[in-house]
Order: sequence, then C-alpha cells, then structure tokens
Amino acid sequence: MNSFGRLFRVSLFGESHGPSVGVVVDGCPAGMLLTAVDLEEDLARRRPGPKGTTARREPDEPIIEAGVAGDRTTGAPIVIRFVNRYFDSAAYDELANTPRPGHADFTSRAQYGQHYDHRGGGHLSGRLTVGLVAAGVIAKKLIAPTMVQARLVEIDGSEEIDAVIAEAIEAEDSVGGIVECGAQEVPLGLGEPFFDSAESLLSHLVFSIGGVRGIEFGAGFAASRMRGSEHNDPILSTTGATASNHAGGINGGITNGNDLSFRVAIKPTSSIAQPQQTVNMDTGEPVELCVEGRHDACIALRIPVILEAATAIVLCDLQMIHHASRVVAPG
Amino acid sequence: MNSFGRLFRVSLFGESHGPSVGVVVDGCPAGMLLTAVDLEEDLARRRPGPKGTTARREPDEPIIEAGVAGDRTTGAPIVIRFVNRYFDSAAYDELANTPRPGHADFTSRAQYGQHYDHRGGGHLSGRLTVGLVAAGVIAKKLIAPTMVQARLVEIDGSEEIDAVIAEAIEAEDSVGGIVECGAQEVPLGLGEPFFDSAESLLSHLVFSIGGVRGIEFGAGFAASRMRGSEHNDPILSTTGATASNHAGGINGGITNGNDLSFRVAIKPTSSIAQPQQTVNMDTGEPVELCVEGRHDACIALRIPVILEAATAIVLCDLQMIHHASRVVAPG
Amino acid sequence: MNSFGRLFRVSLFGESHGPSVGVVVDGCPAGMLLTAVDLEEDLARRRPGPKGTTARREPDEPIIEAGVAGDRTTGAPIVIRFVNRYFDSAAYDELANTPRPGHADFTSRAQYGQHYDHRGGGHLSGRLTVGLVAAGVIAKKLIAPTMVQARLVEIDGSEEIDAVIAEAIEAEDSVGGIVECGAQEVPLGLGEPFFDSAESLLSHLVFSIGGVRGIEFGAGFAASRMRGSEHNDPILSTTGATASNHAGGINGGITNGNDLSFRVAIKPTSSIAQPQQTVNMDTGEPVELCVEGRHDACIALRIPVILEAATAIVLCDLQMIHHASRVVAPG
Amino acid sequence: MNSFGRLFRVSLFGESHGPSVGVVVDGCPAGMLLTAVDLEEDLARRRPGPKGTTARREPDEPIIEAGVAGDRTTGAPIVIRFVNRYFDSAAYDELANTPRPGHADFTSRAQYGQHYDHRGGGHLSGRLTVGLVAAGVIAKKLIAPTMVQARLVEIDGSEEIDAVIAEAIEAEDSVGGIVECGAQEVPLGLGEPFFDSAESLLSHLVFSIGGVRGIEFGAGFAASRMRGSEHNDPILSTTGATASNHAGGINGGITNGNDLSFRVAIKPTSSIAQPQQTVNMDTGEPVELCVEGRHDACIALRIPVILEAATAIVLCDLQMIHHASRVVAPG
Repeated sequence: MNSFGRLFRVSLFGESHGPSVGVVVDGCPAGMLLTAVDLEEDLARRRPGPKGTTARREPDEPIIEAGVAGDRTTGAPIVIRFVNRYFDSAAYDELANTPRPGHADFTSRAQYGQHYDHRGGGHLSGRLTVGLVAAGVIAKKLIAPTMVQARLVEIDGSEEIDAVIAEAIEAEDSVGGIVECGAQEVPLGLGEPFFDSAESLLSHLVFSIGGVRGIEFGAGFAASRMRGSEHNDPILSTTGATASNHAGGINGGITNGNDLSFRVAIKPTSSIAQPQQTVNMDTGEPVELCVEGRHDACIALRIPVILEAATAIVLCDLQMIHHASRVVAPG
Repeated sequence: MNSFGRLFRVSLFGESHGPSVGVVVDGCPAGMLLTAVDLEEDLARRRPGPKGTTARREPDEPIIEAGVAGDRTTGAPIVIRFVNRYFDSAAYDELANTPRPGHADFTSRAQYGQHYDHRGGGHLSGRLTVGLVAAGVIAKKLIAPTMVQARLVEIDGSEEIDAVIAEAIEAEDSVGGIVECGAQEVPLGLGEPFFDSAESLLSHLVFSIGGVRGIEFGAGFAASRMRGSEHNDPILSTTGATASNHAGGINGGITNGNDLSFRVAIKPTSSIAQPQQTVNMDTGEPVELCVEGRHDACIALRIPVILEAATAIVLCDLQMIHHASRVVAPG
Repeated sequence: MNSFGRLFRVSLFGESHGPSVGVVVDGCPAGMLLTAVDLEEDLARRRPGPKGTTARREPDEPIIEAGVAGDRTTGAPIVIRFVNRYFDSAAYDELANTPRPGHADFTSRAQYGQHYDHRGGGHLSGRLTVGLVAAGVIAKKLIAPTMVQARLVEIDGSEEIDAVIAEAIEAEDSVGGIVECGAQEVPLGLGEPFFDSAESLLSHLVFSIGGVRGIEFGAGFAASRMRGSEHNDPILSTTGATASNHAGGINGGITNGNDLSFRVAIKPTSSIAQPQQTVNMDTGEPVELCVEGRHDACIALRIPVILEAATAIVLCDLQMIHHASRVVAPG
Repeated sequence: MNSFGRLFRVSLFGESHGPSVGVVVDGCPAGMLLTAVDLEEDLARRRPGPKGTTARREPDEPIIEAGVAGDRTTGAPIVIRFVNRYFDSAAYDELANTPRPGHADFTSRAQYGQHYDHRGGGHLSGRLTVGLVAAGVIAKKLIAPTMVQARLVEIDGSEEIDAVIAEAIEAEDSVGGIVECGAQEVPLGLGEPFFDSAESLLSHLVFSIGGVRGIEFGAGFAASRMRGSEHNDPILSTTGATASNHAGGINGGITNGNDLSFRVAIKPTSSIAQPQQTVNMDTGEPVELCVEGRHDACIALRIPVILEAATAIVLCDLQMIHHASRVVAPG
C-alpha cells in the first residue's frame, strides 16, 4: 500500500499529470506550529533549479487541507496538497506503447494494465516526493533536537559535480551519484530486534525513493573487507560513545546514541535524449527511442532533502514507538 | 514488532539461552505438504559446521506444534519450534556489565533495561534465524516455480575463502564477506509503487538479519558511476527481456520479469578472542575484554540460506498481494 | 489511526469547519469506471434533507483529486475531496469551555488538548462520513454482484417514523433508532478465524460511525434467550443453504453463503435545544447549556447509506484477502 | 490474520486436537514479573468444571517458552503454550462430511478446503481461548490500576442460572446468555476518532470469541428508544464525572474517564445431543445428526474471564498508543 509507519503514518497520493499530488500524515500530535512557511525551505531544496535538473517549473505551493487550525496541528490527519500546473502530456501519448528503458513504463503496465496513468510516470513519478518532503518537515519538527542532514558527495564517481554534469548534458546523457545522510542527537534505543530494526525501516523507506540502487550503513560494503578487530567500535563510556563509528550508529538494529550515518547510491536518470533500444508493445517490433521533454540530467542533485525526509519520518515513528513501550509501568 | 508480512506473515520468538526458539507463519494456504524432512536441507545449510563457524552444535530438530495435520498445512498458523539444548550461560554472567564492542549488549540494555536476557545475545541472537530459515522453506514451496539461490562470493575482499578464514582464526580475528542472491522465474508485476516497492520489502527483511551492513540491487553502487546510456537496460521483447540487467530485475519498485539480483555486505563477526576496549557500565571504568566461547569466525558463511529465506518470504507475500488485486473484476 | 483495511484501505481526513473533508482509497484495482455521477446517489441519500435532519446544506460535490484518469481508476490511491462551504463557527466559540453532554467535546479535549479543532465536532464530526460513503460506492462496485442494503426499521421504539420525529422536534428533543443491514450474494468463505472474523471487521468499522451504541448479528441478543435446538440453522444443501438464518450469514467468523444480516442501535442525537447540565472547564462552575444551531433531530435517518458503505468496504477487503490466499497453489 | 494489536500484539496458534495451543504476546515491556502462578486464577476460571461445561478436562498447564527469564519479562515476544492431552478425535471422523449445524464445519471447509483440521473444531475451537486468557493476564498486569471485571448476568433470559442449565441438560439442549463487562479506573483519552474508536477495537476483539452474537455499550440497544434529553449524561465536574453513564464510558470513540461498561450476547452452544438436520457433503443426502461427545451445555458460563482478557488486551494496546502520542513534545 502507499502508506508507511506504525504510529506516525505517511501516505502519498497523486499522479504526475493529475489534478494534484500530496500527502496525508496521520498520528502527528496536536498543538505543533505548522504553516506553509515551515515547508518552504525544504520544498525549495527539492525543487528543480540547478543545472542538471528538469525544466518543469512547478511552484509547489502547499495547500494545507486538513489537520491544522490557527497554525497549529489539531491531532487529526494532516493533508497537504500541491496542484499540478505545468505539465505537458502530449509527449507521453506516443510513449504509451514503447516502454522507456530504465523507467517503470513496462512494469507499471504489467502491474496495473492499460488503465495505468503513464503520463509523466503517473503515480510512480518523482513528483510524488514533494509530499514526502512535506511530511519530512513535520517529522523534523517532531524529532528535534535530533538533526538530519544529507548531502551529495559524489557524481559519476567524481567530486567535481558541476563539471561532470555539464559534460553529461553536453553528451545528451545522464549521471548518477552518492548521497550521504547523517543524524545527530539520535536518542539511544530506537529500533526493534529483527523485523523492525532501525536499518530495516530506514532502508524500507529509502528504497521507496525512485532511483536508489543501494544503501550501506556505517562502514557498509567496506565492512565486508575489514577484520573484526578493526571493524568493532571500541566503547569509551557508559553513554555508549565509541572511538570509531563503523556501526553507523546502530547495533543489533537499535540506535546506540552515536551519530546515524548511511550512504545511498543513485542511478543515472533514465530519461536521456540519446537513442535507446526498446520495443513496440503492440507489434513486438524493435524501436529506437529518444526521450524528449524536460528531465533531470542528474536526479541525485535533488535527493538529499528527500533522503532527509525519509530519515526523519522513520526516526519520528521509532521515537513514538519507543516512548509507548517505556511508559507502561510493569507491575 | 517481531512480525513481517501483510498476507504471509512471519513472527520469530525465543532467546538464545531460553527454552526454545521458533517461528509462527500465518497465512499459509491449506493443503500444502509439509514435514520435518522438507526443512532438513535448509536447516543443515544454516547449521554451523565448516571451519569458521561456531562450535555450539544444536541439532535444530523442528517440532511442528500447529498448523499441520497429516503432513499437510491446515490453513491455521504454523508454529515450528526448536528446543535449545547445548548452551552455556556461565560465560555471559560476567559480561552483564561490560558490553561487547560490535554487539547489541549496550543497545539492548538501553532498549529493554536490566531485565533483558543478554545471555548469548538473547532475542537478538543469530540463533533466531533458524526460525526464519524454516519459514523460508515454506515460502519457497509456495512460490515455486520461482527459485531463489544465494551464495557467498567474497570473504574479506578475496575469493580464496578457506585460506582467508584459516588465517583469521589463526590471528584470533574474524572476517566479513559478500553474499549474492538471485531469483529466477520471478513473476512480472510484484511490488508496489513507493512504500512497498520490491526493494523496500526485500531490504527491510534483509536488514533484520544480524551483521548485514549494506545491500545493492542490480548494478548497485556501481550504478552511481555509470552514465544513463550505459545503465539503462535495452528492452528486447514484449515479455520485458532486456539485453543487460543493471536494474536487478526491478523497475520502479516492481519486478520486471527478469532475474532478481542483489548483493549484501556482511560485517566481520563481532566476537573475537583478541582484547577489545569497552567499559564497566556500573563503574564507568575502562575494561579490556576478550570474548571467550564458541563463535563464528565468519558469519557470512551461514548467511546464504538465511538470505534465501528472507527473499522467498518477501516474494511469497508479494505474490499473494499481487493476486489479491488482480482477481476482483472491476465493474 | 484513521485508516481501515488490509488490501482495500480507506483513510478519512478533514474537519467539519476546515477547508475540506475527504477520503483516500488505497488498493482499488485499475480499470474500474469511476466518475462523480457514480457517487451521486449515495451522497444524496446521506445528505440532510428530510425533516429531522440538520439544516446545514452542503452540496457535497466530489472532487476526484487522484487515482482516476479518463474516468477509470489507475491503480494508484484514489482521493476524493469535498469542500466545506456552509459552516458557521461563531456558535462554537462559546462552547470551547463548556463540553456538550453526549458529545466528544470533553474527550477530544482530553485526547488532543486545547489545540483540537472543536468547531462542529472537528475531525469527529458526522461530516466525515461523506468520505466513507464515497469509499462505499467504490467498494460496492468492486464487490458486485454482492448487494448491500440498509434501512431504518425503528425510531424511538416505533415504526411510525414521521410522527415520532415531528413530536421530538416539537419537544426540542431528539430520538434514536434501529437500522438493519443485509447483503445478498455474499461469497462463501469470507473472514478469518479469531481476530479477523467477519463480525469483528464489520463491527470494527460500524462502531467507527458516530452514534452507534450496539450491533447484533442474525438472531443477536435474542439468541441469548434461545435453546440450541431452536437457534441452530438446519443445513439443507451442500451449498450451505439453511432453513433459518439465526447465524446472520456467518459461522465461526466466516461467511456461509447465506444472506448477511445485522442490526445496529443508534442513539438519539446529542445536540438538543433543551437546557442540559455541564460544567465550565476553566472555573469548574456548573453551566446550563442549550445547544443552538442546525442539528439532526434523528441521525438514524442518515445512517443507512453510511452503514452500507461500511459493510461494502469490509466485504471488499475480505474478498481481496480471500482471493489472495486462494491463488497460491500449494506444492 | 491471527494477530491483534498495534503495539501490544497478541497472536493465537494451535488446533483443538493438535500437539498444543498457545499465544504469542509481542510488545510487552521488559521487567514485569510473570510466572505460571500469575496465570493460574484466570485459567481456572476458564477451565470447564461447573455443571453445564464440557467434560474434557485439560490441565491447562502453561509452558512459558520465550520472553521470560528469571520470572521477569525480557522485552522479547512472550510465548505461552498449552499441550493438548485429553482429546479423542475418533468421534470427528464421521463428522468430516456432515457439517454440524451452528458450527463452523461448513465454513471452515469452504475457507480452507479438505485439509482443514476439523477435529474438535480445529483452529476455530473454543480451546484457543486459553491463549487469549493467558494474554489477558499479562494485559491486566500492565494496565493496573485499571480493573476489568465480567460476569454472567442472564442465562436463557433468566437469572436463575443453575435451574435453567439443569433443565437444558435434561432436555439434551443448550442455552445462551448475557455477559456484562466493566472496567474501573480507565484512563481518560483512550481511543481514536473513527476507525480505531474504543468501541471499534473492543468489539473487534470481542467478536473474535466464538458464540458472541451481539455487543452493546452503555445504554446500548435501549438507547435507540431514548430521547436525547434522557440519554445524554449530564457532566458534573471538570474530571468528566457524569450523573448517569448511558455512554458506557466512551464519547466519540474516546474513553471519558468514567467506568467502561458493555454487554455481550452469547448464543446457545451449537453442539446438542438432539437430532438435527444437516447434509452429507459428498452425496447431498439429508442427514439427521446427533452430536455426541463432551460439550458445554452453556458456553456463556466460561465467557466472563475470556471477555475480561479481550477487554484488558484492547485497553493495554490503547494505553500504549496513548502514551506514544503524548510524549513527543511538539515544537
């Protein structure tokens, strides 16, 4: 289903070329200040703009439909909606029968049949992440003083981001990248053994973001090439402070009070103007396809704020669950 | 909570040094043949044995407590239990106040307080995976003809597995590794957009396995260094067959009918005989700790069958969900 | 949380005096015809109008924000929104500190604190049922040929409905009633033993409707005064047809193929113009309160279509779950 | 599925004539004292014994398999198992093709097919409630000082319980009854608007108990024949104390701090020695069936402690959820 979370539950709705997209946030406590202004900064970070991002310019003005009165949350589900204004579906009509390589055209057709709204990717469009970012703002407020920060650390294996992107655009190609995410002042004791480990929940939500191909916590894949004597983080104090942080802030699925740290691999944007090989779904004939339209040459540029939102949402849910099990005094 | 799955739901119970560990599988259709013999092969693959695995020798004899009558599933929840026989808790008493680096001793104490059963890792022990493997056998039967196979491809960055492990044991150290998992004949159309993408669910369950530090699908982290023109898989036919499989069998969170393919990074075992730095939780004094007892020098050796189980469980749940949405004929 | 359902999931949002109220329906298969016209009849049945219902006249024009393109469902979550137009919050300002007897003013303040939007009952308002009715229309289409029908059978213990209501209005009082609900052509085998019995799920959703005080299936409370020889329904054929239907169409929590039949008790509307005793929450002083405004003298009048919606939603979810467990062929 | 609860989750397993039945309780905080002795009193209350209950005499000795160490809960899932000792499946073999009227034989066959373990009712047997009672003991300890008490108030419409049962046994018939359940010192503010109202969750769990045909809260069905001026409970103080309790302790789905009060209708036991009409499922021939064996003439006698368990489980889950939403301080 399109919902995530046990006590702090986020649901996304909408389609890229439908009337609007948005988010329902259920479980937010009453009394929290929340206005459109609060959402502005993170929405702006997600919005296309820098070179390498799509030319579709949506204003992303949040309409708070429910759950807020007098600038404060009421305890009821919060609904934030964004009207889709500047889309052009014409380009998609001819795509209906020629699935774009790397995209979900083929699989969404398999999943939903011919009535799936494939225009702009439909419900699977990256446009849906605008709602996730809005939910992330709410979560960030709730988990304060925990701070979540993500940043792009690498594009196409290089740190020279601008140059690499310029080159890719020139080549009518696209590039991927690596985004690093961290959280500070994370409470000790979040996460549950086995199925709801902190890594399980974080990766669950992170892999719901289009374009993510991998995730690693702490030392990550490099841990597979370490010895235990090197990888184990020496424990320095009763607060759990450690000399290194190869665990990425999590042991046994439970946060250990150190900084949370993980990295995410983002694939190159699937839409490229170069000709690519696909097939006509009606005739079975091979087709050479050039994807026209306004696309990001590098979606990784826009991922950091989305990754922060995903992280904050998980931490918020875990924090609420954590408190719940704490307060029932066992006889 | 210690449950996973929407229609095919698996719950683990038990503690390493408690009376027994086991699994509840809810949602298995009635009428499937299931005997202890069916479980044998996979349980044997998980059982320690090869050099580099722990010397604790549990027979892992499955007791089917419920959900099976006359060798067939009844439709009611299946409970499979494994008695804990050969454990020695003595070694753990002195560990109570000195958390082992890399282990969940510190975090489980934070999460559950002093009454957590820390002996042998308690509920967070790798011993719990015996129930997951049993559930995996059931799932594998249900998803046939889909086949799931995992194998260890690298230890400590090397493919010379035996030599590396012998060297690590000699050095009183431990090593990590990389396990690759694939599935063939995966139905097209499994997974849902956004929150229940196939990658989301797979990674959720995979990160519940102790020692996993990272996961990557298809080209994975390497995708971040590819151009779109290289990474996009050319589509060859209306069945979705592609010339390459950088997507790992999933587009937009939905299986595309190609082989599923992902890799998992396993950290080196935390328990090592070498002295490590930790702290006395009562006094705050630094302590130099050598972890005695029977431990795996390389847990990665035992991960493949566990990873297969996790994969089969997710595919089984997705398959059941997939059918559900298919059969209600919309008016 | 404000969601219900495992595969066909309904979430309500909005507040009586907020911008809009509505519903998210997740899990509806793609390809079903759905237009505003489909919703008209049931929305009209819920809309106030007959004597004894509130004078607040909302047009209840459904805005389909998502999940439908070209008049067909796309498989993505469906969002239907109703703008709140004709409300007058002035009357509620003085009510903020004097909880109305029978209403949720006191409890919602306890649950959410001072920031709960109490105007018109806020999120707990009967207005929210407009979204439930919209979801019910979708469910009814999906479960066809199963037919669900509810009707008011008794007001204030009498069948002379018009006369009783006229008298209550005259007396500045309100009345309750009994609503009967039935379903025909219900598939055999819906519902699960124990926790997800058909009665469990139906009652769960029915008690979410404001004003419901009791529910009984089949012979209901009268069954407690029957002998087994009288209550047991003689089985007439291998299709499960029975000579009587004291079971209400359900045995052991599972539908038996006969008509589903249950009755619901509705309390008299809490808002009455007569003076009632309450308390000033700031001062603790007793207050005599007359509830002004536009209220239903008998909410039971509007319950039938809401009850049908609740029933159809449960049957739809159960039907999807039923199919899911059916189609995985056990080896 | 066979699970209930969001943070305090109870799952039942087992079959009447299988190796054992039992319960998994997930989410119980660590550190609570729990021994077999704690379970004794409530298990004894459920155990058959008084005239009118079955002659199958199971000792119901609880085996605590997991989640408890040193007489205290560890925070991990608690598993309590009861071995089935004294059952006789012979009588059920001939029943396989002649569904007993009033029982789930016909529906469970429809739901699960021929491999359902129908002996003694299988997984749908009242025997399963032994696990519910055990979970109820845990919940009761957790919710203290809230007290839950249920009692049988009426058998076959009469309060002369012993005489009525003696007469029914004499007549080879069975009788139903009414059980009343109340809770004192219930925290204010439990329950959520709409889908997770206190009544919704209570009725959900109560209708999972076999034989329940109706439930009513507070004034219940009688409320449908009251005027608002009579039904509304006058509010006496800022603590929410009311002059009457027609609401049964719940307004708008949320507990109001007054005593919780509801009544449940129990049908007469389906198994009676008198001849009843059914059908041979293979041949379609009518069959006159006398149900032999050891059965309760009045299951209502054993319901009170089961109802208390159901109530305590719901209140425990609601209390944990309540705390969760309280403790995240909104910025």
